Amino acid sequence: MSTYAQHAGQHLAQLLQSRTVPQLEQALQPKPQEPPPQFPGGSRITPAAVDRRWKALGAAENLQAALLDPQTAEQMQAYRNNIENFIGTVKVPVGIAGPLRVNGLFAQGDYYVPLATTEAALVASYSRGAHLLTAAGGCTTLLLNEGLGRAPGFAFANLVDAGKFVMWAIAQQDTFRQVAEATTRHGKLIDLRVTVEGNHVYLDFQFTTGDASGQNMVTIATQAICDYIQQHAPIQPQYAFVEANLSGDKKASAQSFLSVRGKKVTAEATLPADLVAKCLHATPAQMVDYWRMSALAGTLTGTIGVQGHYANGLAALYLACGQDVACVAESAVGVTRFEVTPDGSLYAAVTLPNLVVGTVGGGTGLPSQQACLTLLGLAGSGHARAFAEVCAGLLLAGELSIIGALTSGEFTRAHERRARRKGSGEGERA
Amino acid sequence: MSTYAQHAGQHLAQLLQSRTVPQLEQALQPKPQEPPPQFPGGSRITPAAVDRRWKALGAAENLQAALLDPQTAEQMQAYRNNIENFIGTVKVPVGIAGPLRVNGLFAQGDYYVPLATTEAALVASYSRGAHLLTAAGGCTTLLLNEGLGRAPGFAFANLVDAGKFVMWAIAQQDTFRQVAEATTRHGKLIDLRVTVEGNHVYLDFQFTTGDASGQNMVTIATQAICDYIQQHAPIQPQYAFVEANLSGDKKASAQSFLSVRGKKVTAEATLPADLVAKCLHATPAQMVDYWRMSALAGTLTGTIGVQGHYANGLAALYLACGQDVACVAESAVGVTRFEVTPDGSLYAAVTLPNLVVGTVGGGTGLPSQQACLTLLGLAGSGHARAFAEVCAGLLLAGELSIIGALTSGEFTRAHERRARRKGSGEGERA
Amino acid sequence: MSTYAQHAGQHLAQLLQSRTVPQLEQALQPKPQEPPPQFPGGSRITPAAVDRRWKALGAAENLQAALLDPQTAEQMQAYRNNIENFIGTVKVPVGIAGPLRVNGLFAQGDYYVPLATTEAALVASYSRGAHLLTAAGGCTTLLLNEGLGRAPGFAFANLVDAGKFVMWAIAQQDTFRQVAEATTRHGKLIDLRVTVEGNHVYLDFQFTTGDASGQNMVTIATQAICDYIQQHAPIQPQYAFVEANLSGDKKASAQSFLSVRGKKVTAEATLPADLVAKCLHATPAQMVDYWRMSALAGTLTGTIGVQGHYANGLAALYLACGQDVACVAESAVGVTRFEVTPDGSLYAAVTLPNLVVGTVGGGTGLPSQQACLTLLGLAGSGHARAFAEVCAGLLLAGELSIIGALTSGEFTRAHERRARRKGSGEGERA
Amino acid sequence: MSTYAQHAGQHLAQLLQSRTVPQLEQALQPKPQEPPPQFPGGSRITPAAVDRRWKALGAAENLQAALLDPQTAEQMQAYRNNIENFIGTVKVPVGIAGPLRVNGLFAQGDYYVPLATTEAALVASYSRGAHLLTAAGGCTTLLLNEGLGRAPGFAFANLVDAGKFVMWAIAQQDTFRQVAEATTRHGKLIDLRVTVEGNHVYLDFQFTTGDASGQNMVTIATQAICDYIQQHAPIQPQYAFVEANLSGDKKASAQSFLSVRGKKVTAEATLPADLVAKCLHATPAQMVDYWRMSALAGTLTGTIGVQGHYANGLAALYLACGQDVACVAESAVGVTRFEVTPDGSLYAAVTLPNLVVGTVGGGTGLPSQQACLTLLGLAGSGHARAFAEVCAGLLLAGELSIIGALTSGEFTRAHERRARRKGSGEGERA
Repeated sequence: MSTYAQHAGQHLAQLLQSRTVPQLEQALQPKPQEPPPQFPGGSRITPAAVDRRWKALGAAENLQAALLDPQTAEQMQAYRNNIENFIGTVKVPVGIAGPLRVNGLFAQGDYYVPLATTEAALVASYSRGAHLLTAAGGCTTLLLNEGLGRAPGFAFANLVDAGKFVMWAIAQQDTFRQVAEATTRHGKLIDLRVTVEGNHVYLDFQFTTGDASGQNMVTIATQAICDYIQQHAPIQPQYAFVEANLSGDKKASAQSFLSVRGKKVTAEATLPADLVAKCLHATPAQMVDYWRMSALAGTLTGTIGVQGHYANGLAALYLACGQDVACVAESAVGVTRFEVTPDGSLYAAVTLPNLVVGTVGGGTGLPSQQACLTLLGLAGSGHARAFAEVCAGLLLAGELSIIGALTSGEFTRAHERRARRKGSGEGERA
Repeated sequence: MSTYAQHAGQHLAQLLQSRTVPQLEQALQPKPQEPPPQFPGGSRITPAAVDRRWKALGAAENLQAALLDPQTAEQMQAYRNNIENFIGTVKVPVGIAGPLRVNGLFAQGDYYVPLATTEAALVASYSRGAHLLTAAGGCTTLLLNEGLGRAPGFAFANLVDAGKFVMWAIAQQDTFRQVAEATTRHGKLIDLRVTVEGNHVYLDFQFTTGDASGQNMVTIATQAICDYIQQHAPIQPQYAFVEANLSGDKKASAQSFLSVRGKKVTAEATLPADLVAKCLHATPAQMVDYWRMSALAGTLTGTIGVQGHYANGLAALYLACGQDVACVAESAVGVTRFEVTPDGSLYAAVTLPNLVVGTVGGGTGLPSQQACLTLLGLAGSGHARAFAEVCAGLLLAGELSIIGALTSGEFTRAHERRARRKGSGEGERA
Repeated sequence: MSTYAQHAGQHLAQLLQSRTVPQLEQALQPKPQEPPPQFPGGSRITPAAVDRRWKALGAAENLQAALLDPQTAEQMQAYRNNIENFIGTVKVPVGIAGPLRVNGLFAQGDYYVPLATTEAALVASYSRGAHLLTAAGGCTTLLLNEGLGRAPGFAFANLVDAGKFVMWAIAQQDTFRQVAEATTRHGKLIDLRVTVEGNHVYLDFQFTTGDASGQNMVTIATQAICDYIQQHAPIQPQYAFVEANLSGDKKASAQSFLSVRGKKVTAEATLPADLVAKCLHATPAQMVDYWRMSALAGTLTGTIGVQGHYANGLAALYLACGQDVACVAESAVGVTRFEVTPDGSLYAAVTLPNLVVGTVGGGTGLPSQQACLTLLGLAGSGHARAFAEVCAGLLLAGELSIIGALTSGEFTRAHERRARRKGSGEGERA
Repeated sequence: MSTYAQHAGQHLAQLLQSRTVPQLEQALQPKPQEPPPQFPGGSRITPAAVDRRWKALGAAENLQAALLDPQTAEQMQAYRNNIENFIGTVKVPVGIAGPLRVNGLFAQGDYYVPLATTEAALVASYSRGAHLLTAAGGCTTLLLNEGLGRAPGFAFANLVDAGKFVMWAIAQQDTFRQVAEATTRHGKLIDLRVTVEGNHVYLDFQFTTGDASGQNMVTIATQAICDYIQQHAPIQPQYAFVEANLSGDKKASAQSFLSVRGKKVTAEATLPADLVAKCLHATPAQMVDYWRMSALAGTLTGTIGVQGHYANGLAALYLACGQDVACVAESAVGVTRFEVTPDGSLYAAVTLPNLVVGTVGGGTGLPSQQACLTLLGLAGSGHARAFAEVCAGLLLAGELSIIGALTSGEFTRAHERRARRKGSGEGERA
């Protein structure tokens, strides 16, 4: 939020070009007048309810047509567990990247990966990387660990009470497990991490969550533990919260590297120099030159992890396959490494500690999302781990492709082509 | 990526339950056999091309129907500048949060905010927060700064050459500006930041980008500068890249706080205690107790910034309105602050240094995305700054609502309701 | 390392004021001429060896007198295990802070804390905080955990080999323990953390180290494990290092919060408002206002942890008591929290995850350092944990005092007094 | 501060081995009994005052002899501006590393670098690295930037007031400069950075400070600005602090990379392979293998920057030369880079953004510290920039030496030799 005075001055001058200070001040004041009538929201999705909402919006018909297309109108019931105040759907174009060959513990074979994005060149770029990996016999992937935490926080009067509480809680692990697992068929309590900061105690309950991403599951299970604590703990906290922001939910954190959140996966490939040259128009040494400089740039900017553009592929895959896209904030963290091997090949690896993914629950059952998962061959129970491995393979493909493009000077040309496609006046806009 | 030996052992044991070590080893090996035929991709979007792709996938008809619905089939040309290897669209349900009253420098009035998500309770939660803010006269928002950088990197033989290059480059600022601005109608080069690390030099060119988010625009403009450098610099680098990962593109970084990336906005409101009690069932003091504990939990986990769940609202708003959803990785960073004021009200503020948003270009012109922007009243030129301010207001609403829910114990109940809605066997899955 | 072009230009202009570019270039070139004769260094400390070194330096007599004072000359043998190329000693003034009352698991009573520093006002400030804590009945301290890691790194050809190695290593924990503990009487191997990043494997061996800080001890023990691995592992790494920089040795890291390095300690006190007013001339609410703003400033600058000036007290205590002062880089990390309690008192706590301290070994046995530890009542075996608790209490005192000074406006006055003490021309220099 | 439950349980069990829970609880309670008599402290340093302090401590005579040696007793007046509650001095052994050849903008020649430490092998290791650099013609160093900030914070009722204050402050820069520079002969106000977070405003005033490290100087100058603000600002803050923790004082932060704190310096050398082999018993490729693995380990642990052990050399040099040793917490941050050049040499560089150093003021004028600076040839005015460049060269030497030792397997052997030197029972203690 910092700004050098010179910039701040320019920015202010610009603000004041068309307005006086009193006008600006007036604009920023709270406006006490009565709000407009409440929006007829709610979780019900019926034609009548949706119609009421559109009427309340008073929007032009073409807007309604764009969001409430015939298929959406027909299938609207499908969305009843996933949204409130429903008015229609937004459509995001889907392209196929691949085939991507994955040699994993759980993922095996050639995958056609559906990616949903509005950013030109993204699918082409990931697809190029997939082609390279597949031509080399595929990438190897390894699911290293899995788990998902909820971290209630408890505030006590002082360290003595906090300490006594911790002592009690540590002895209740078996009970906590029973209480938690009574709320879920698929969740298993696998560990408890205790964090003390002054008279605050955080208990981070770690679960496995089957094939669901599991945030909801672990919330309910942890609430049951909190209720048990409220009824049985000999020392009661002054206040407590079922999640005190220690779990890393929906945010990038260094913690991901040191524990696990969701699935932790690594993917690698060793790529012969001639194949790299053919697909990426670069040598392994050039790719490593880029990697080194970009890795240190990450350090110089205070970035968590070392990587190029995980977020692009992740967001597109998550979106197509009904994952929680907000989890991109935490999942797009990890380490990319490129090396020249003694025989002159390119060794490339990505390690992702925080893939919050599932193949059941959440948005995975919605019509078009389920279709994408099915295209991928990973819909439903039994596929979450393979999905995580494909995800890692995809991000490896994306790192190879973008670094190839930056190394060979093609990065800008892809942007320029896109600009030209859009015609003279429009291309530069994005 | 770390795992305590005990967990690692359990994980390994599980892997080996159904497979031998040689089987695992075989699974992970590269598979040299011929890849399947190449996917008939490309950037062309015609019925014939799309049909060829579906044939290549060999997918069941119902999958095609789910992704290539009638409206998508009819409007497929609309996506031609935004995707490659197109096969259809994924549909994400949209709900309305609001009205949200915003008293900003650029945003003024009561906004009905379209949010696209598959996560139940999200729209309801943001809407609740919007209701609270609006009832209090709205939130005040302030666009603090704007800019977007591209950061080419240059490697030299040694510090002497690096130093001479920097000396030259600093003197070329006016020329760089002309060269860059010749490529764009809307982009303006506003600053240059020089970073030296040993014999590496990064030049971070900062632009304003009009109403576009502008990543493409600044790439093309910076490439022009790099071309000029290649032709005119008295000291040539050993190698150079148009983007060397110093710009912070698509990743959370501490740098966002110290400069700007996209729009930097702050939003605040002072909320009377009775209104907080009525809307959130909590007192200001309780809200602050949560804030304090959660802020320190962020610190304890090595998180960048202090916040609750910016990613949720951001991803939903970005998705509905045609923004680049991958930018959630960088935009979901900032600072939330809650305080009790001397008169017992709740002061709440969010500050977002890194909102990469636009109202033209990217996905903003696609049919349903354009419809959402139009519903919001912010489609097209002249609205990017207001969009950023609405974004900040929305995230303030979301922080109030979730912290209210966690404070009053309603967080889990919302999850439970959702689970019940889904029926006995399914609810726990997400 | 970044600099806005304007500053860089000013800086360059200044450099070129008195020199031409060719002159600068010449200055920076390697100078191939023969180096001066080698310095007669070595680990021997005898009057003759020391004399030879002074002769080689060709220094004025008064310099030798300043460093090789009579006591140092007489006791020079005392330093033989702690330094090479010895020429004398530097003298750092020591002041007493306290008495500081500590109510800990291990520290109990009123401590007179020796602090060595050259920074005026430091001892007075910590002493003021100690006075406040003691007047309130003392601070409560809790040693939360202890351990010290060494983290060898192993590079393999690929993930398959890395995975097989991990599988083997996890099964050798008992053997590793025997091998490690055969090298030490006091060190105990307590855990093993496995980190996989592509084909790299880090094994972080965690030890307790008795009353020594233990870096040397864990190096030797871990080397023994590495030797065992080299002889017995069925899969040999391509290369390996006994410490691959994962242990956090000598650097601030987020990892400290999530595991432990050295001793993890928390200290707290609840201070009546009238006592705060009397000692610090501030109200609890004002102290909390400062804390809140300063905590967020830490976030805005990308700082690890939330604190005021731990480094000041730590460096002074470490230095006086023969600790490794370089460990200030890692130890000066933690969380300070101030709150107003329901009855209007000030709750204050510090939590330090990374105190690398010992009461035997290192510099603790040197004459003046041993004297300081003895004054503190914590010299020799059996006192390391108490030392860590006193350390936490001291830092709590320092946070209270400096925040009090900043809140009441006395911070600058202390600096000004110091400047005046120095006389007209000198005061401003520091 | 987190601990897995299993460890926490073991730790608790150990605590309870010899004590009951009520005993522990009693130990931790505040003890209201009267504190011991106040320590006869103060800033006066006279034989009588010092004698009173020793009497109050009631310490054995040998302790007093160790701290209040004849030279210290004679020169005690020298410490009067640097300490309170003085009782004597602690002696830290000093060894010489070098000669270190530096080819810098400001440092030129072969330096004998005094290092004060109690850690065996440290001086020998830095000296080895210095020997390597000198044999290669010396290292090249470049002072990239300099500046030191103080960052007062101001809290307002709301964003409107905050905005109006910022608008006013930005227009006062010339006045602020006059007000600030009236307090100092050497300090120059060179920039102002504005940070807004909700209704909080931080103004970060950047100064150059001549040859002093300057913390005191910038405090006094900034206080003058704050006083001016209090008298003249049209909008008064609700409260303000002269330093609100945004300057980065005494703590590692990502901000250092993005601005400057103290001196920003880079140092490099290109080392022929045969020289590396001769001095370090390693090949350039092996050194780079270590560097790569260790750099990523830094990332995996959430470390700021990428480096090996800057803190060791920094603490020893700062201590010998009268710098503020607490600044090691902030100064020991930076980036080390190793590469193999096309001709097979080793390129090595360090970049340090945050060297807070001076050659006047602080502890630089004390007898033994001044002697060390004089030995180095850098005592007094006009030498601060050269001192910073020598510092960078020294740290480059240290990185080369330790990475050489870790690569060639000599790291442990150095520790073992030290252990043996200490005799059978003692060696393992540190």
